[in-house]
Amino acid sequence: MPETPKQISAEIVTVGTELLLGHLIDTNSAFLGEKLAEIGINVFYKTSVGDNEERLINVLKLAGTRTDVIIITGGLGPTVDDITKNAVVKLLNRKLILSEKVLEQIRGMFSQIKVKMAQNNLSQALVPSGAVVIENGNGTAPGLRLQNEEGKYFILMPGVPREMKKMTEESVLPFLKETFKLEETIRSRTLKCFGLGESTVDEKINDIFTASTNPTIALLASHTEVKIRLTSKAKSTEAAEEAISRVEKEILRRLGDNIFAVDEGSMESKVAELLKAGKLTLAVAESCTGGLISDKLTNVPGASEFLKLGVVSYSNQAKERLLNVPPTAINMFGAVSKQVAVEMALGVKKLSNADISLGVTGIAGPGGGSEEKPVGLVYIALSTPSGMQVKECRFRGERIKIKEQSAQTALDMLRRHLLGN
Amino acid sequence: MPETPKQISAEIVTVGTELLLGHLIDTNSAFLGEKLAEIGINVFYKTSVGDNEERLINVLKLAGTRTDVIIITGGLGPTVDDITKNAVVKLLNRKLILSEKVLEQIRGMFSQIKVKMAQNNLSQALVPSGAVVIENGNGTAPGLRLQNEEGKYFILMPGVPREMKKMTEESVLPFLKETFKLEETIRSRTLKCFGLGESTVDEKINDIFTASTNPTIALLASHTEVKIRLTSKAKSTEAAEEAISRVEKEILRRLGDNIFAVDEGSMESKVAELLKAGKLTLAVAESCTGGLISDKLTNVPGASEFLKLGVVSYSNQAKERLLNVPPTAINMFGAVSKQVAVEMALGVKKLSNADISLGVTGIAGPGGGSEEKPVGLVYIALSTPSGMQVKECRFRGERIKIKEQSAQTALDMLRRHLLGN
Repeated sequence: MPETPKQISAEIVTVGTELLLGHLIDTNSAFLGEKLAEIGINVFYKTSVGDNEERLINVLKLAGTRTDVIIITGGLGPTVDDITKNAVVKLLNRKLILSEKVLEQIRGMFSQIKVKMAQNNLSQALVPSGAVVIENGNGTAPGLRLQNEEGKYFILMPGVPREMKKMTEESVLPFLKETFKLEETIRSRTLKCFGLGESTVDEKINDIFTASTNPTIALLASHTEVKIRLTSKAKSTEAAEEAISRVEKEILRRLGDNIFAVDEGSMESKVAELLKAGKLTLAVAESCTGGLISDKLTNVPGASEFLKLGVVSYSNQAKERLLNVPPTAINMFGAVSKQVAVEMALGVKKLSNADISLGVTGIAGPGGGSEEKPVGLVYIALSTPSGMQVKECRFRGERIKIKEQSAQTALDMLRRHLLGN
Repeated sequence: MPETPKQISAEIVTVGTELLLGHLIDTNSAFLGEKLAEIGINVFYKTSVGDNEERLINVLKLAGTRTDVIIITGGLGPTVDDITKNAVVKLLNRKLILSEKVLEQIRGMFSQIKVKMAQNNLSQALVPSGAVVIENGNGTAPGLRLQNEEGKYFILMPGVPREMKKMTEESVLPFLKETFKLEETIRSRTLKCFGLGESTVDEKINDIFTASTNPTIALLASHTEVKIRLTSKAKSTEAAEEAISRVEKEILRRLGDNIFAVDEGSMESKVAELLKAGKLTLAVAESCTGGLISDKLTNVPGASEFLKLGVVSYSNQAKERLLNVPPTAINMFGAVSKQVAVEMALGVKKLSNADISLGVTGIAGPGGGSEEKPVGLVYIALSTPSGMQVKECRFRGERIKIKEQSAQTALDMLRRHLLGN
């Protein structure tokens, strides 16, 4: 036995023509990838193949030569286009044998839900010779585990997520951990950054990126954030967390308040947390964001503690009558202007007696733009006890992307203010 | 030349370790699978591989032997872990050459958004010898098209969905259709149903389901709709559309106004269309939905034509002072009650002079529920020139799901009213 345990690799194979046609998005393989990584198994490939026996056999044959564990989901149902079991039987030269035990379980399942068992469910009780049956606590198709001549494992599970997940957690992961004596754990943490572009983030932390092998670092950018994901592999959860924290500290030092959340945290949950901590209340006047800021904030449980009022003043009439925006401001500077954003923030603050307010006005498009004021031009005003800030932004993209960037930027201004910047 | 055109096959390769780790769900390949199917190209395999050059080269090498077209997304960014271009250069024995034209485009992109171009963006202007550049209208990484010695096409696109989708629609699909003289077309149409459960829909159209082979029919249910997808294959777009329309007509006859939209249409776009057609204006008072209804409506271009005002009256104070909800109504019946929903609708209507208004109040959870008024209890009031309707709903699921069901139900009440029901 070598002293350092061999790196165990895996391939995930998902079976079903609907996956290739894009009618079904493959979330099973994401779940499996995450779970395998956590016990220290490296997924090297994910392959999706249709309900075609020849191609499936070829995919499985190749998989058996390039990784140690092949996890296959889908195609175990009772219908004719469920071909996975037969493909494995042919590839590994097995026979199908009726398992009385599996048959009993399937019968039990049907009588429990008071449904008559269809004839084709019988086929689900046929088990390849030499296969170990993995019990399905949530359905009729049992999972199967087989080995090829080189000892590579083929693990077959149904494609129904609820069934596959239960089997994975209860049988497959414990089996793999024990069989391969996996002692290493993988942990990851995601830092979310706003206010710096992907390449700037890259430049600022590139040397850490290159130097750090544990944790490894990956960047992922979207229009509302740059994610920095730290992934560490270690002998224990504690050691992995410690390795992550060490690098996280250095990244935080360099990127500072541009990091707004960690892992599942969001911009709105951070803002909610800071408002609650400061016992501050908020009111929001939205034009181009159309309610998105309020919607995001009220996705956070307990938003009623701080959100006093939201006004979607899409019309000039609402801006003037309800928010008291002077008609002269609209006439002189236009509804999309610094001045109107400020008046909106002041108006909604007065109306609600909130401590802090936001006013957002802009052109989300696709229409309504001009050379002077193009689509994507957005003004955000933040009124706080210490004064007023206004920001002019020029966003790109489609209407909904512009709304999202506007909302994220407004919440970020508020976050930075609450942090005392 | 053979008389029947050869079946063209494709493999989709998505690149990125985050896909294997399950940190990112691969929606790109679903989009590509659907689009390729529409022009009659059969996707035989989808493969995901990590940011590992050797494994990527092997995957691409194999792909080049088993299908005619290989579409690769991801790994074209400016950072060190973007390895796709180099892998293709090595596999196909090319050289990287600086393209002045691409460099100009990247520079233009940066100056347009007033961001300084980072040094590493230069690498995106390096193009493999013999490659055709595919313009990226939405980002800095250009797409690339190359052929191997057997004439198989390798098409590289960035992993950012917005960039990849635009390139696919505008360049890749037209190129493939022309190059392979593709004449068979697959068309599909999705009917969206609200107000009937999945099993009821199934019962009502099950016989059509079983009898129809062209189009085929598939059902897909979520918490806010049941989708009915009709897919037809034919020699021409017209023939495919005609086959779909024939079956659609019968489904519409049976499900009637429960079908609220087709394809990309949404509940909010239907409501917007009906409001505009009737030259009617709307105001919305939202409590538990927290701005989601306004947000959805303002996702529709031109919402300013009908949306006069949205009020997010999360606090009782806002309900009372701004919407004029009588404090006695809140004290006697509670903020979540039929009476308060009605008063909210009346209040926002008066405030805005809109023709129609909605008032929504409920308990989105996770806290705030009681035995008498559990989480998921929601009241929706619709005030129209012809009177007031109120609906009591009991939704299940988490906070955000409850918000979404509430918004969808409110918009559906409005839609049915506008249809004259």
